[in-house]
Amino acid sequence: MPRTVRPDPCAPEHRQPARRVLCTQEVSTMIATRRRQSGQPRPPAHAAVSAPAAALRARARCAAFLTLIASGATWAATQQPTLPLPVVVGTIESAKVGETRPFWISLPDGYSATGQPYPVLYMLDGEFNFNSGVIGGLRWAASLGEIPEFIVVGIPNTDRAKDMFQEEVTFSDGSKAGGRADRFLEFIQTELIPYVDRTYRTQPYRVLYGTSNTGFTAVYALLHRPELASSYVAASATLRLPGFLAERDERIRTFAGGRRRLVLVMGEQDLPTVLVQNGALKEKVEMLAPAGLTCGLTVVERGEHVPADALLTGVRRLFEGWSLGRPLTAENFREIRDQVERRPAQYGVIEKLPESALRSLGGALLDAKRAAEAVEVCQFRVESYPRSAEAHVSLGDAYRLGGETEKARTCYRQALTLAPDHPDARACLQELAK
Amino acid sequence: MPRTVRPDPCAPEHRQPARRVLCTQEVSTMIATRRRQSGQPRPPAHAAVSAPAAALRARARCAAFLTLIASGATWAATQQPTLPLPVVVGTIESAKVGETRPFWISLPDGYSATGQPYPVLYMLDGEFNFNSGVIGGLRWAASLGEIPEFIVVGIPNTDRAKDMFQEEVTFSDGSKAGGRADRFLEFIQTELIPYVDRTYRTQPYRVLYGTSNTGFTAVYALLHRPELASSYVAASATLRLPGFLAERDERIRTFAGGRRRLVLVMGEQDLPTVLVQNGALKEKVEMLAPAGLTCGLTVVERGEHVPADALLTGVRRLFEGWSLGRPLTAENFREIRDQVERRPAQYGVIEKLPESALRSLGGALLDAKRAAEAVEVCQFRVESYPRSAEAHVSLGDAYRLGGETEKARTCYRQALTLAPDHPDARACLQELAK
Repeated sequence: MPRTVRPDPCAPEHRQPARRVLCTQEVSTMIATRRRQSGQPRPPAHAAVSAPAAALRARARCAAFLTLIASGATWAATQQPTLPLPVVVGTIESAKVGETRPFWISLPDGYSATGQPYPVLYMLDGEFNFNSGVIGGLRWAASLGEIPEFIVVGIPNTDRAKDMFQEEVTFSDGSKAGGRADRFLEFIQTELIPYVDRTYRTQPYRVLYGTSNTGFTAVYALLHRPELASSYVAASATLRLPGFLAERDERIRTFAGGRRRLVLVMGEQDLPTVLVQNGALKEKVEMLAPAGLTCGLTVVERGEHVPADALLTGVRRLFEGWSLGRPLTAENFREIRDQVERRPAQYGVIEKLPESALRSLGGALLDAKRAAEAVEVCQFRVESYPRSAEAHVSLGDAYRLGGETEKARTCYRQALTLAPDHPDARACLQELAK
Repeated sequence: MPRTVRPDPCAPEHRQPARRVLCTQEVSTMIATRRRQSGQPRPPAHAAVSAPAAALRARARCAAFLTLIASGATWAATQQPTLPLPVVVGTIESAKVGETRPFWISLPDGYSATGQPYPVLYMLDGEFNFNSGVIGGLRWAASLGEIPEFIVVGIPNTDRAKDMFQEEVTFSDGSKAGGRADRFLEFIQTELIPYVDRTYRTQPYRVLYGTSNTGFTAVYALLHRPELASSYVAASATLRLPGFLAERDERIRTFAGGRRRLVLVMGEQDLPTVLVQNGALKEKVEMLAPAGLTCGLTVVERGEHVPADALLTGVRRLFEGWSLGRPLTAENFREIRDQVERRPAQYGVIEKLPESALRSLGGALLDAKRAAEAVEVCQFRVESYPRSAEAHVSLGDAYRLGGETEKARTCYRQALTLAPDHPDARACLQELAK
């Protein structure tokens, strides 16, 4: 049976942080995180333990391993950082626009480690928007749990004037613009998105983001090609195009794109007509749109044209209520589990609870010998991370604690099918065979 | 003399954004940013202009060039993104600790382009803190103008338990920790910092950041080795070490490190003793410290041990009042110039106004034929960017507008010494020779 180790000041039961565990070493207090080492490529927590690993391991038993992190003189010397914002640069030969189109992709830090699929944000005007300030804001907010982590795809312009409008417009000096927005959006929808979906682990949820004139392009895409993305964020969209204004209300009234969300962001000190035209669009969606199409409008106080935090402002609007807002505890487990399970229906995005949070809570419940609750938490962990051998071992431990030996055996065996050399699973099965 | 082009809806006079210029193309309105093309490796602004570049150039004259951006089918195809958060990985053979020490460096996006020196943030517990969430928050806040841009140096642990304390402590299980903090800090101060200063463009201003036990290390460094950094941010520092508590008050009373700032950040739901010990340290600094040493304390509401936004919270405290908070206009120019010029004395950090903002305002004043003000703005631009040939040309234009032909000639000649082929400088000198 699991043996309870000394109280751990870093991870007291019923107070497990949901997103991040950082332990400290208080003098004269032995620290042990109740995390199993196996199956963890890189523990998410600080934990300094005073005794050598071997001594600790000898002291630890089946279900209560002590984790030694950052100990041993060469530990970090061989580590590489998870490169912040790793960026992939590529091009596509586009038949739709007849050009070589560059694209830039920023992956979440954990992309390689997690094995999870991510929603994707497609960013127009890549050469202006794809930078550490804008993307850093998204990464920061995701690290705080306010929004999901995204793969960000920047689409730099090759001929901005052509791509931003479909209708051709003539300027006062006689020159022309527009004419290629439909083909440009077809390139994104039928060439770029399929490439990204083939190449990376993506969820079907997509955001299209545009700024200023390409904010218009994003609005145009929503009304003409709503299957391109799930949500559209348009920053300081310039909406005063005659053809667009002529068809706008009818397009909204007859919108058949299903559940789509548009967020309009602009600055309080934006350019002339931006507030008026965006306000008008917002009102028309409220008045005319069928159920499913909704529109949020945010004016950034004292903001100028395309406020510097327009994207984060818009994405926060898309994910209002997303944050769990509190650490996972035994008391709020069911509530948080339900909130996480509602996310796909509510937002169209899946984001699991971190396995580390479920590991900590499950371990604490095992230590406290609260078998029924431990089963519930470990069961949810197994459902969330079915390929985690360690999760199956934990569920086995929970069943064993509750006296359900046969179910425990099944779990340990399942762990061994996933990780044939898993020492805990093997040891526990042997103990049960005695 | 400069010719005024048609009104530019993107950059109306007296309303020039200080940090970012983003223009739009309103239908039937010709857009012209009053930016000179020469000397600009990559314009910071969106601007779509409808006419071909050659036609525009033919129409533009000496001081009122029209800028064509993102036009031409292959423009962006050959561009690479400024890689968000470029990361450099390296090691130092440290004589001080007798180890190979890894380090990770994140440079600001604009590092290669700006030629400016940056303050440096040294981050302990690199393997936990050096990630896109934490660094992304800094980049995002810097892009909003709330804090300066930093070079961030992550220092991963090799033997955390040894490095975090100088005093040796014995745990309840008999194991020991500590003993190497002095040598570890000497490594940072005499090996790592000099390497970074030799290799990158740095300002003397440095922040040392530590979390949990290494938050203690940061506090210890301030009191034992204050020349290591200008400011110290300690997140959820664990301060309950007997030796430290015994010497704390005397160290504070006799502090001789000059002007230093300590910011203590922790969570409202932090570990036991963290709030109490940090509160005590804050109070002792208030009561005992000589002038120069100051301490800020921030408790993050509902935050846990080492809140996820601890670093940004701490750096924001260091740079309270840093933000200019409003776009640069002719009316507030002197006020903002003074604010920028006070920064080195007030914060220890230099950050210039972006040249693009001064270019826009100077151009608008030239167009409005407000010669005296244009001279003042262009003069400040030349002082801020003395190696910008374009800045000297602008100042020449301003003098010329005010009838000070000889001063104008000197400026154009100065531009030619910096950029011997500068077409504007050459053309203007020829015009003046007629």
